Amino acid sequence: MTTVVEPVHIKEQARLAQIASKELGLLSTEDKNAALHTIADHLDANVSNIMEGNNQDLANGRKALYDEAYMDRLALNEARIKEFAEGLRQVAKLDDPTGEIVSQWTLDNGLDVQTVRVPLGVIGMIYEARPNVTADATGLALKSGNAIVLKGGSSAIHSNRAIVKVMKEALISTKISQDAVQFIDSTDRVATEQLFTMKEHIDVLIPRGGGKLIQAVVNHATVPVLETGVGNCHIYIDKGADVDKAINIFINAKTDRPAVCNAAETLIVHEAFLAAHQETLIEAFNKYNIGVYGDDKVLSAVPNATRATEQHWAEEFLSLDVAMKVVSTVDEAIAHIDEYGTKHSEAIVTEDKETAKRFKGLVDAAAIYHNASTRFTDGSALGFGAEIGISTQKLHARGPMGLQALTTIKYVMSGNGQIR
Amino acid sequence: MTTVVEPVHIKEQARLAQIASKELGLLSTEDKNAALHTIADHLDANVSNIMEGNNQDLANGRKALYDEAYMDRLALNEARIKEFAEGLRQVAKLDDPTGEIVSQWTLDNGLDVQTVRVPLGVIGMIYEARPNVTADATGLALKSGNAIVLKGGSSAIHSNRAIVKVMKEALISTKISQDAVQFIDSTDRVATEQLFTMKEHIDVLIPRGGGKLIQAVVNHATVPVLETGVGNCHIYIDKGADVDKAINIFINAKTDRPAVCNAAETLIVHEAFLAAHQETLIEAFNKYNIGVYGDDKVLSAVPNATRATEQHWAEEFLSLDVAMKVVSTVDEAIAHIDEYGTKHSEAIVTEDKETAKRFKGLVDAAAIYHNASTRFTDGSALGFGAEIGISTQKLHARGPMGLQALTTIKYVMSGNGQIR
Repeated sequence: MTTVVEPVHIKEQARLAQIASKELGLLSTEDKNAALHTIADHLDANVSNIMEGNNQDLANGRKALYDEAYMDRLALNEARIKEFAEGLRQVAKLDDPTGEIVSQWTLDNGLDVQTVRVPLGVIGMIYEARPNVTADATGLALKSGNAIVLKGGSSAIHSNRAIVKVMKEALISTKISQDAVQFIDSTDRVATEQLFTMKEHIDVLIPRGGGKLIQAVVNHATVPVLETGVGNCHIYIDKGADVDKAINIFINAKTDRPAVCNAAETLIVHEAFLAAHQETLIEAFNKYNIGVYGDDKVLSAVPNATRATEQHWAEEFLSLDVAMKVVSTVDEAIAHIDEYGTKHSEAIVTEDKETAKRFKGLVDAAAIYHNASTRFTDGSALGFGAEIGISTQKLHARGPMGLQALTTIKYVMSGNGQIR
Repeated sequence: MTTVVEPVHIKEQARLAQIASKELGLLSTEDKNAALHTIADHLDANVSNIMEGNNQDLANGRKALYDEAYMDRLALNEARIKEFAEGLRQVAKLDDPTGEIVSQWTLDNGLDVQTVRVPLGVIGMIYEARPNVTADATGLALKSGNAIVLKGGSSAIHSNRAIVKVMKEALISTKISQDAVQFIDSTDRVATEQLFTMKEHIDVLIPRGGGKLIQAVVNHATVPVLETGVGNCHIYIDKGADVDKAINIFINAKTDRPAVCNAAETLIVHEAFLAAHQETLIEAFNKYNIGVYGDDKVLSAVPNATRATEQHWAEEFLSLDVAMKVVSTVDEAIAHIDEYGTKHSEAIVTEDKETAKRFKGLVDAAAIYHNASTRFTDGSALGFGAEIGISTQKLHARGPMGLQALTTIKYVMSGNGQIR
């Protein structure tokens, strides 16, 4: 059954979020941290209410015959819900980016100029099945002084509704207005589209989920978008690469968590490396059950390889499959990445410093690796504490986005009558 | 006569710009500066060619009965063209933002993490009648390692064509490819719209001109946009404000250059200030020929004032006219600015520090002034050397945008086989 919310109501929710964001932006770090702890305690105390909602979603999911991976993303249990709470407590520990004086100088006429870090205002979070995003995104938004409008996926609506109810009840006893957290209680796609153009009330949209969702937001939103994370990531193994490093890095990037955006999707191998280490590579494919889709040279070198189509080069497998291409030069590898990459994470394995330098300079992506796995493009791996997504666009924030990505700056000028 | 360029050709131009941007991004600061000097010298040496193009535009403009201000923005002369050249030499003197290591740390496993400042890639510049933008934007783009696609206004097409011809001829003897500067030689609106969705080749669009142009880009572009500068700026004079400071700041912000975006468009006055200094204010209006559009309280206080309509509150006059509102509290002033402001520059004149603090905290704009004129929201006034526009959006860059706004960062990771 589709839950429909009137467009007028959604606009009113966004307007209320905007009003709440004003005083929230002026709260002290201590007040915001106290609120995060209160929310965390309420989540801990309301596991059963949240599980009730989640059970409804899981029952509907079974009826809809969702696959196992999808059901796993959707499923909550006591331990997972306690992780949400713990996540909020971790965010409370992080430095508050707002209020920071980023730069300060005085003009010759005595005018004091400061750039001060301030919240963005209202964040519109559009996401899919994972109910953990509801709590995580709210924690990051509130800590950075922003109100949040949450539009989760239809399949998780009962879980999300229950989580938001608990969080909003918690806010009553804090200095943050309940209005700072708005839940679009709708499974109607039109509700999401309403948010795309609500420029007067929403400062930024963050879509998080599959490529189709992200593209829908990018293509139709007039609200500025922080584009997150489809990762068609490549590992390029250069001629003369250290064979152990090369295989380890590829296997880690491909198999550690195949369904995430920083996993490798295409292996590009220099022909000289392939000639020297063909057997080792094939052994690794077999040992880890990796299915290979390749070009002509791959087909003649790798047993059981299947011919790669345009789709294999262009899209994420998010499984143990990999596309594989053989090249004669690093520039050929760079050109392939240019054509098919999604500007997420790209790696070169080489012992040649000049080749590494060229790869780092010419490949256009959020993260470029020399002799390391692409799996490190991740807020927690890099020490950010928490992330709201990984930006694959170039403006504002690139790569893993933590609290600072949810802020902007404001010029604050103090004078005693200066005119021009 | 409309000059039409085939869509396919525009796409090809953007593709060539993108290819050129790759090696341009790797050039040394010295090579880029040398190229800027060569372009400047060629502009100096080709004043007559550029004037020939400009004369055609001016003749067409006279036929089209453009107003004086418009004709003034369009008109070139030897001195103005030499200013373009001098501007490029000034940009050559500025620090090169690219290559800067913004941050660097080492993970426990030894992986070295750097964030390095890099060019955006290809900038799409969409602008109106001012031919100086053609040279200025090109200089800023090239200095920051970016290729540029220029789409100027139809009324300046002969001027722009001539300027670009000179610049591209100059590039032949430099290390920057001629392809790094692309001129969309078209007066067809469809050509501009083509650029809106050319995400695969253009990294950012910068619209510069009137509100309609900017809104068209914001509403229809899927390429990320750096939204520049409509400024419906307010001066709020608080109760107990110093009368000299207040009048000086208002007169400067209103009359120094009424047609620019950081000029004041609305005066908000606390009722107590109005009661105390009504005569002084009226004298100032009369002395500077300022036309006043006001609310009821203004109509009864200011002779010859006209009733303000919604349009007067919401839009820029860009003339010596001003909208005027009387309020009883600073919060009423803030609420008015919230409703009608364009998040550009907002000023308070007050001697009360707490009131100033509340205004600075609650007003949502790129620049907030306490006891100073809004006219300082300007790259050159703030010491940036040059600006590509003033951002009124919150993402990426806010306020005057110099070279750094034309860059992004890239995570560059160097390891010796690290896996997760």
